Amino acid sequence: MPKETASQFFTRIKHFLFGAPLSNQMMAHEKISKFKALAVLSSDALSSVAYATEEILIPLGGFAAAAVAWSIPIAIGIGILLFIITLSYRQTIDSYPSGGGAYIVAKENLGTMAGLVAAASLLIDYVLTVSVSVAAGVENIASAVPFLREHKEWIGISVIILLMTFNLRGVRESSNIFAVPTYLFIVSFLILIGVGTWKIMTGVATQVAPVIHEDYPNVPLLLILKAFSSGCAALTGVEAISNGIPIFQPPTQKNAKTTLVWMSVILGSFFLGITLLAHMYGIMPKEGETAVSLLAHSIFGDSGLYYLIQISTALILVLAANTSYADFPRLASLLAKDRFLPRQLASLGDRLVFSNGILGLSLAAMLLIVLFKGETHHLIPLYAVGVFLSFTLSQWGMVLHHLKEKEKGWVKSLCFNALGAVSTLVVLMVITLTKFKHGAWMIVLLIPLLVLVFKKINTHYLNVGKELTLIGSEAPPGLELIKHTVIIPISGIHRGVLDALRYGRSISKDVFGVYVELDAESTERFQKEWKKWGHDLPLVVLKSPYRSVIDPLLTYINDVVGATKDEMITVLIPEFVTAKWWQHFLHNQTALFIRTSLLFKRGVVVTSVRYHLKSE
Amino acid sequence: MPKETASQFFTRIKHFLFGAPLSNQMMAHEKISKFKALAVLSSDALSSVAYATEEILIPLGGFAAAAVAWSIPIAIGIGILLFIITLSYRQTIDSYPSGGGAYIVAKENLGTMAGLVAAASLLIDYVLTVSVSVAAGVENIASAVPFLREHKEWIGISVIILLMTFNLRGVRESSNIFAVPTYLFIVSFLILIGVGTWKIMTGVATQVAPVIHEDYPNVPLLLILKAFSSGCAALTGVEAISNGIPIFQPPTQKNAKTTLVWMSVILGSFFLGITLLAHMYGIMPKEGETAVSLLAHSIFGDSGLYYLIQISTALILVLAANTSYADFPRLASLLAKDRFLPRQLASLGDRLVFSNGILGLSLAAMLLIVLFKGETHHLIPLYAVGVFLSFTLSQWGMVLHHLKEKEKGWVKSLCFNALGAVSTLVVLMVITLTKFKHGAWMIVLLIPLLVLVFKKINTHYLNVGKELTLIGSEAPPGLELIKHTVIIPISGIHRGVLDALRYGRSISKDVFGVYVELDAESTERFQKEWKKWGHDLPLVVLKSPYRSVIDPLLTYINDVVGATKDEMITVLIPEFVTAKWWQHFLHNQTALFIRTSLLFKRGVVVTSVRYHLKSE
Repeated sequence: MPKETASQFFTRIKHFLFGAPLSNQMMAHEKISKFKALAVLSSDALSSVAYATEEILIPLGGFAAAAVAWSIPIAIGIGILLFIITLSYRQTIDSYPSGGGAYIVAKENLGTMAGLVAAASLLIDYVLTVSVSVAAGVENIASAVPFLREHKEWIGISVIILLMTFNLRGVRESSNIFAVPTYLFIVSFLILIGVGTWKIMTGVATQVAPVIHEDYPNVPLLLILKAFSSGCAALTGVEAISNGIPIFQPPTQKNAKTTLVWMSVILGSFFLGITLLAHMYGIMPKEGETAVSLLAHSIFGDSGLYYLIQISTALILVLAANTSYADFPRLASLLAKDRFLPRQLASLGDRLVFSNGILGLSLAAMLLIVLFKGETHHLIPLYAVGVFLSFTLSQWGMVLHHLKEKEKGWVKSLCFNALGAVSTLVVLMVITLTKFKHGAWMIVLLIPLLVLVFKKINTHYLNVGKELTLIGSEAPPGLELIKHTVIIPISGIHRGVLDALRYGRSISKDVFGVYVELDAESTERFQKEWKKWGHDLPLVVLKSPYRSVIDPLLTYINDVVGATKDEMITVLIPEFVTAKWWQHFLHNQTALFIRTSLLFKRGVVVTSVRYHLKSE
Repeated sequence: MPKETASQFFTRIKHFLFGAPLSNQMMAHEKISKFKALAVLSSDALSSVAYATEEILIPLGGFAAAAVAWSIPIAIGIGILLFIITLSYRQTIDSYPSGGGAYIVAKENLGTMAGLVAAASLLIDYVLTVSVSVAAGVENIASAVPFLREHKEWIGISVIILLMTFNLRGVRESSNIFAVPTYLFIVSFLILIGVGTWKIMTGVATQVAPVIHEDYPNVPLLLILKAFSSGCAALTGVEAISNGIPIFQPPTQKNAKTTLVWMSVILGSFFLGITLLAHMYGIMPKEGETAVSLLAHSIFGDSGLYYLIQISTALILVLAANTSYADFPRLASLLAKDRFLPRQLASLGDRLVFSNGILGLSLAAMLLIVLFKGETHHLIPLYAVGVFLSFTLSQWGMVLHHLKEKEKGWVKSLCFNALGAVSTLVVLMVITLTKFKHGAWMIVLLIPLLVLVFKKINTHYLNVGKELTLIGSEAPPGLELIKHTVIIPISGIHRGVLDALRYGRSISKDVFGVYVELDAESTERFQKEWKKWGHDLPLVVLKSPYRSVIDPLLTYINDVVGATKDEMITVLIPEFVTAKWWQHFLHNQTALFIRTSLLFKRGVVVTSVRYHLKSE
């Protein structure tokens, strides 16, 4: 292989697939308007409309057809919760102008451990956002195109691979591309809700059930709580704006707060609207078709508008999945900078994006898609726990923040955050209890496990730091030279080893050739050659009763390390580099074995002196 | 990880699975009696009885039920061919007392190219012996236990994995273990043929068809030739005794010749016996049950004797597969010694067996099982071509041997070998033509391809030999020292790099530290530290607009190689070795990237100076 072609080749492939590297200068944050920011930051929250109503209907409908009447009060309850959380996050925007993610807020106000718990639940949630959104997006497409239903998992995995590639290339064009699906979704759902309501009011469509029932059927409280817990999936992603404040044009905080209100109003009205319409149109959960698809079918029939709804739903869901591709690596990098994750995650990749985090996120999300067979409904119980755990920690953090900082107008803020903190804590407990055996237990196990890993990694870095630090040490007056013996393992004298002998002689005065005897006859021949070409260098011949070349050599090196008082032993390995890659396999891999075997040996330096073969 | 645990760990696993290494002294050949030698060397030949009759019946029965009458004359023809080949191989035993495999006989007498063709066909045949024998063995078991039929491929693969493990452990206990299934097979088939004949003669069983027909149905000649070609599978393995002469007790050649005759007599009478009985009992080929199983069922019903036949058939077939595990690596090693295969194959492995060959053989055989869905019948057309090609080359080689050497009694030997050579050549042509489109074409393509690979490998070794040889060169008066510059890539000053600096200083006077700047502030801090700890060593700071550490470093190394007139540049990389293996992933992998990138760079020596972390 010609010089460097291998590495150049991979670089070329990498650049082709993921784009050429970007320079530092291109990293400056782009500042965007409220209109664009809404598109970028609200896709996760808004997309919840696609599955939240269905999640309420599934447990109710599974109990009794009449029980779905409860979906309306449940949806109103979730609407109130949304209002409380919105109020609460407006306070966070005031207090954390550079972005107040749950990790930061919890760590600063409740201590490192709370911060790590929040971080663990957030990392899990980012993975689940990808899995749930992609699964729901695929389900909506499969609702419209039934023959895709069997292949849900593979389509989901393909979408994730596309998202991964897109993100590894870097998403600088973000805000403009993002605006399209978000506003397409908003417009198409306005049409859906508008036309749906109009058809009921004009009597074009038959109203199956009233909005307000005189009697609500008697159902167990646990069922109501279960349906409520599932419906809380509607609130995922609400925190995005308070995390992403720096991207707003000034006045930054004011714009962020306004956008948060816009988003909550849209989310709340869409969620309530869809839930009400689903009830009035008598939509019941059905295998293979989503509630949104059933409702859109009822309202639009099989027209183009139906397909518009399905496509815009799928698009905003994919966009929602995509937000995790910015959030996950950003949080991983914060954790890595605080030494709770491998330091490789802290640094920017080639493309100003955190390549390692993107890969990890994609693999985990794909694994979940496979494990849960691409079913949104099975993933939701895992999703809600982490979301509300981070909500709760973040709100409690804000409560302590106000008590400590006492900023201007802190009493009002404290009240709002306290209300948020208490409500989210109650909801968290309800979700954990009602969803525990449906999968929430995994999250309850996984979070402490992740925290343990964070702590373990942190301890390692702290210890290594202590072990390596030179702070407070006095430097010696000069670099002290090292006396070292050079050992050259050698199996025959030819042109390929002469440079190694000369190099060995040049770096030390104590140089030994070491030859492993496989049969006595060859040894004799070798010794003659060695005298001629090795000149004054001493030669050690090792016996090998088991015909292994490596074992006697390692034993000998051990002996030398013990016998000499040298600080170091240099093992100098002559190696071939063949002209063509396949020829490499025609030569013994002894050098590789020696190198691997010496990996954990203290006081041994391993050096390769390569001979480049020209032969075809 | 404590010192060397990694390599010790793998050694322990290897010894547990494959046994501890054997010393050279244990390699002495064991000499065995005719009785044992028959068991060891004839399983391949005798086991053909299990499928050869069926292979004749399938094409005939597929044409017309009456056409199976032709199986008798065809079987007699194959019997005559067996007689000729036996006579011919008796001459080989006389001329090649140390074992006359087709590769050796063809190479010595017909030239290297003929030898390589023989070698290629033999290697292919060894693989096919494993696939065909295992497939046929599994089919016989599945005939008795029908629910296994669906899982034929997986059972076949498991059997091959067992054979592989058994052989990697080394098969010193060979002859005693081998005697059991071979003699069990001989005894049980004697019972089968005896009882079968007795039942017909006494009228206990109804004779469906006469042995000798007055009229033979009119069938195309091509069909007869096809059935004949398939039936020639009965002759595979006949050459084993003439290859394995050295294991016989003296008088070696006499004993080998006697054993060859015994084997041929048993093989011939079993094959003819089974074919005759199958005809008289009216056995017709059937999906899912082998001919032997059908015949045994007809004779014994569902009794214990039926199961004895099936089990002893399966056992001898597995034993036959096992013979390839000795033959394949032995031939590969001969080829490697002649430099036609990678030299790694030439040397004995840890267990006195040729581990690499065993692995290659097993993988290829498993691949065939998967490709041909474990069906013996589909593998047979591939099998016979190679067998008869090596028969033919070996016999023609013997013809030339006699003409050249003119040993005592050479005229008689010449006649026998010439008869063998002509008959096998004719059969080879018949097989190739009739089986071409059923799979023989693959072998016809594969053999020249393999020969090409042999030649290509040989050329490489010859060229490397020429390139490296020092024969005829004058040694210089002493080892000339090399002036070299040392480059130490470094990202920070801490205890882990101090040894590297000292080591660098000790091996050369020209030492540079190289630092890649990621931000200006860190650079300034670093430079101060360098002055304190690096003393007089010069420092080069490289800018990195794209935040890559590797690229600027490689460019710089290239520049240094160009600028200095040094013969060599030493790149000295400080590396960490962590105390636990998982901690390795918490540190940057820059050292690995640098080493890989420099792999193909001429004039660069790469040295690792490792710091062993103690931290948990």
